[in-house]
Amino acid sequence: MANRFTRAALAGDSDVTSFDQLHDWVRQRRAAYRFEVERIRFDQLVGWHRAPSTGNLAHDTGRFFSIEGLQLRTDAHPEGGWSQPIINQPEVGVLGILAREFNGVLHLLMQAKMEPGNVNVVQLSPTVQATRSNYTGAHRGQAVQYLEYFIGPRRGRVLADVLQSEQGSWFLRKRNRNMVVEVTGDVPVGGDFCWLSLGQVQRLLREDNMVNMDARTVLSCLPFTAVDTDGDGFRGALQRSIAGWPYERHTLVELISWLTDVRARRDFAQTPIPLNAVEHWVHEPDVIRHQDDRYFTVIAVDVRATAREVTRWTQPLFAPRSRSIIAFLVRRIRGVLHVLVHARVEAGSASIAEFAPTVQCDPANYTGAFAGLRPPFLDVVAGAAPERIRYDVVQSEEGGRFYHAEIRNLIVEVGDDFPLDAPDDYRWMTVRQMTELLRHSNYFNVEARGLVACLHSLW
Amino acid sequence: MANRFTRAALAGDSDVTSFDQLHDWVRQRRAAYRFEVERIRFDQLVGWHRAPSTGNLAHDTGRFFSIEGLQLRTDAHPEGGWSQPIINQPEVGVLGILAREFNGVLHLLMQAKMEPGNVNVVQLSPTVQATRSNYTGAHRGQAVQYLEYFIGPRRGRVLADVLQSEQGSWFLRKRNRNMVVEVTGDVPVGGDFCWLSLGQVQRLLREDNMVNMDARTVLSCLPFTAVDTDGDGFRGALQRSIAGWPYERHTLVELISWLTDVRARRDFAQTPIPLNAVEHWVHEPDVIRHQDDRYFTVIAVDVRATAREVTRWTQPLFAPRSRSIIAFLVRRIRGVLHVLVHARVEAGSASIAEFAPTVQCDPANYTGAFAGLRPPFLDVVAGAAPERIRYDVVQSEEGGRFYHAEIRNLIVEVGDDFPLDAPDDYRWMTVRQMTELLRHSNYFNVEARGLVACLHSLW
Repeated sequence: MANRFTRAALAGDSDVTSFDQLHDWVRQRRAAYRFEVERIRFDQLVGWHRAPSTGNLAHDTGRFFSIEGLQLRTDAHPEGGWSQPIINQPEVGVLGILAREFNGVLHLLMQAKMEPGNVNVVQLSPTVQATRSNYTGAHRGQAVQYLEYFIGPRRGRVLADVLQSEQGSWFLRKRNRNMVVEVTGDVPVGGDFCWLSLGQVQRLLREDNMVNMDARTVLSCLPFTAVDTDGDGFRGALQRSIAGWPYERHTLVELISWLTDVRARRDFAQTPIPLNAVEHWVHEPDVIRHQDDRYFTVIAVDVRATAREVTRWTQPLFAPRSRSIIAFLVRRIRGVLHVLVHARVEAGSASIAEFAPTVQCDPANYTGAFAGLRPPFLDVVAGAAPERIRYDVVQSEEGGRFYHAEIRNLIVEVGDDFPLDAPDDYRWMTVRQMTELLRHSNYFNVEARGLVACLHSLW
Repeated sequence: MANRFTRAALAGDSDVTSFDQLHDWVRQRRAAYRFEVERIRFDQLVGWHRAPSTGNLAHDTGRFFSIEGLQLRTDAHPEGGWSQPIINQPEVGVLGILAREFNGVLHLLMQAKMEPGNVNVVQLSPTVQATRSNYTGAHRGQAVQYLEYFIGPRRGRVLADVLQSEQGSWFLRKRNRNMVVEVTGDVPVGGDFCWLSLGQVQRLLREDNMVNMDARTVLSCLPFTAVDTDGDGFRGALQRSIAGWPYERHTLVELISWLTDVRARRDFAQTPIPLNAVEHWVHEPDVIRHQDDRYFTVIAVDVRATAREVTRWTQPLFAPRSRSIIAFLVRRIRGVLHVLVHARVEAGSASIAEFAPTVQCDPANYTGAFAGLRPPFLDVVAGAAPERIRYDVVQSEEGGRFYHAEIRNLIVEVGDDFPLDAPDDYRWMTVRQMTELLRHSNYFNVEARGLVACLHSLW
C-alpha cells in the first residue's frame, strides 16, 4: 500500500494529464473566474450581525462561524496569557481527496477552487472542501460535487480518514476531517477538476501559492514510505527517514511521552469572552485591530464571483499583518534525516500543544520592545546559507477565512556541527515517525502538516 | 517488552507480598484512617464561593476546579441538546504507576488511598494520583510522594505516558496524564504503599471496589500481549484477541475512519453558561438537583481525615442518583474474541465522541416517559444468562470528585447467533486493536478504559 504512493510519487509525467496541460488548465480556470473582493464596513455585512451585548460577530442563522473573544491563561507566555479575537466554528468540515490508479500509477482528483482570500483567486484544492454548513445546505448553494464518496455508505477504499486541527492561533478548537478515498471505477470529471499523479502534485508543491492549505494537510496524512534507501547526500538521508531506517534518535513512546509532558506541565485555561472584552484591541467601522497594529486584523468583504456555490456574498475574514515564516530545521543523524519539531502551545488548541515547525512566527511581531521574545532558531533560518536551503516556497493559508495570508515555507538543512541536544520543547524525529503519528488526530498542527507534505516532495 | 507484562500477569503469588499479606495491609490501612464525611450547605464551604452573577461554584484561589453550566447542542440527542452542571478543571493531573522487576516478575507500586467519596474509604490507587494544584502546592499540603519519578528529568524508563479523558458526562474536556515508569534501583516504600505483581493487581480487579478508577485507567494503557494463544473456549479466544491473531473483523484504518465519521457527522457545539442558567435544575441550600430528581446532584461535604495532604477540608462533590451499568458485549469471531464498542458522544468531551462500552448508562434514567430511550443492548446485558457473564464486579468512580458513585462492570459473552452486523454507531474490535489505540489520546473514554483493564484480568 505505502509502496504504491512511492511509485506514484516517483512516476514522472502522467499519462492522463501532462504537466503542460495541467498548467494550461490552471491558467484557464483562473481566467474563467471573474472575481471581485471589496472591503466593506461590518454594518454592510448581509446576513451577519454583531450581538449588542458581546460585540460577537455572528451569522444570523447561528451557523457557519462567529468571531468571538478568547482569554488564555498560560505559563507558556511571559506575561501569563493574553486575550484575542478568535473564530468559533464548532463543526467539522470535510477535506477529501479522491484517488484512482491509471496505468498502475496513483492519481488524485484535484479541484481548481476559488477562495475570496486567495492572492491569486484559484489554487488546487482537495476534491471536496466543504464545511458542514456547506454540505448540509445551510449555504443554500449548489450541492457539493463528489461529496458522496466521502460521506455516507462507502463507495471506495479509505486510505486515510482522521480529524486534524486547524490554525490554533485563529480558530477555537477547530478540526477538519482529512480523507483520501480510493476508487476503482470511472468517475465523471467536471471542468473544475483534474486527475494529477501524486508526482505531479508534489512538483506543484514546489511552486508558490499553487497547492492550497487544505490539500497540503490531506497530503500529509498519506501513508508514505520509500522504496529506495541507498541514495547519496540529502536525498538518501530523506529516503531512509521516510522508509523507517533502523536508526531513530528517540522511540515513538519517548516522543509521545515528551508531548504528553508539555501538555501536562503547562498551565493552560481557555475562557471564551465577549469580543468587546478583548483587551488592547480597537473596534473601528471596517476593522478590528490590535492597538499597536500587530498580529492580525478582522475585516469584512463583499465577494462577487462567477462560479461558486453562491455568486455573491459578504463575510468577515482574518487578515494577517505581514508574511509569516514556518521552517523545519533538518539534520542527518547517522545517515537518517531527522526533523527538529517544536511542541507548541496555541491559544485555540483543543489539545494544549501539538508538534509544530521548528520555527513558526511572523517576524514582524518581534521588533522593538518585543525583540527579546524572538523565537529560538529564527536567526538560524533567517541566516541560512543558500546551499543549506532545501525548500523555499510561499504557500497560502486557507482563503475562505484568511485574507492574503501568505507563509514562507522553508526547509533548512543544518550541518553536523549543529547541536543534537535540543532545548526542552524541541525534539528530533524521523519522517517515518511523523507518518506513523499522522494516522492519528492531535499530533501535528496544520502548519507542520503542510510542511511535511512539502518535505515529501523533495525526494 | 509486552511479553514481560504477560509473564508478570501469569505469575501467581508474588515473592514480595503474598496475597494474604496484601489483604491484611488493605485492612490495616482502612482501619488506620479515621474519616468522617458530613454533608453541609454550600454556604458552609470554606474557601469556596458562588459567584453572584453566574452562580458558578468556584474556589477562592481560582484553582482546583469550579462547577459551572454547559449548554450542549447536538443531534445525537433526540431533543437536540440539553444543559447541565459540569466540572471545569482546566489542568492535567498525573496518574502514575511505578513499576519494577522482582525476581524477573514485574511489580507495580500501589497506594492505599483514601478519598472522601469512596464507599469504603480506602482503595488501591496509582503510586501518584495528583492534580496539578496538588503538586504545584496550591493545596498547601504535604509534598506528593514519588512525584519525582513522573515529573521532571527521567529517573526510569517510560512504558506508557499519554493524556486520557475523564468522565465526559461530568467534566468539561478534562484530561489526565496516564503514566507507567519502570525503575531498576531500590525505592523506599512508605506505609501507604505496597509492591504488587501485575497478576495480583489483576486478581484484585475481580473484587468489588478494590482497585480505584485511576488505577484501572492507567492499567489499560499498558502494552499487553499474550504468550499463549492455543487455549480453549473463552480464554483461548481472549488470548488470541490480546495477541493480535491474524483475524480482525475491521482493519485499524477502518476503525479510525468509523470514529472520525461519527465525530464529523454529528452536530456538536459546547457553550459554557452560568450555573444559574442551567434549565430544569433546582438550587437548594445544600443540593443542586434536576427538577425530576434524575441524573445526579451537586452536594457539599466537610471532610475530617487523619491522613491526607490536608487533614480537614470542605469541597463540592457530584453524587449520582443510582448505580450505573457499563458492559462490553464480547463474541468469538473465527476463534478470536471481539468486543462490541460504541462511538459515544458525551457532553464534556474534548473530541466529540470516543469509543465507549457497548452499554453505558444509569438504567434509572430510562423509566416512565423515558423508557423509549433505553439504550441498545441494555436488555441483552440485563437479561444475560449467568453462564454468559464473564465478569460482574462493582467498581467505583474517582472518590475525589464523585460521592458513592458505583458502577456495575459487566463483560457478557454472546453466542454465534448474535448478529455480526452492528448498528451504525457500534463496531467489533479485538483487544489487540484496543491496546494499539490506547497508546494514543482521545480514543477510549474512561469507562471503556476501566473495562479494558478488567477484561485483561480474565485470561
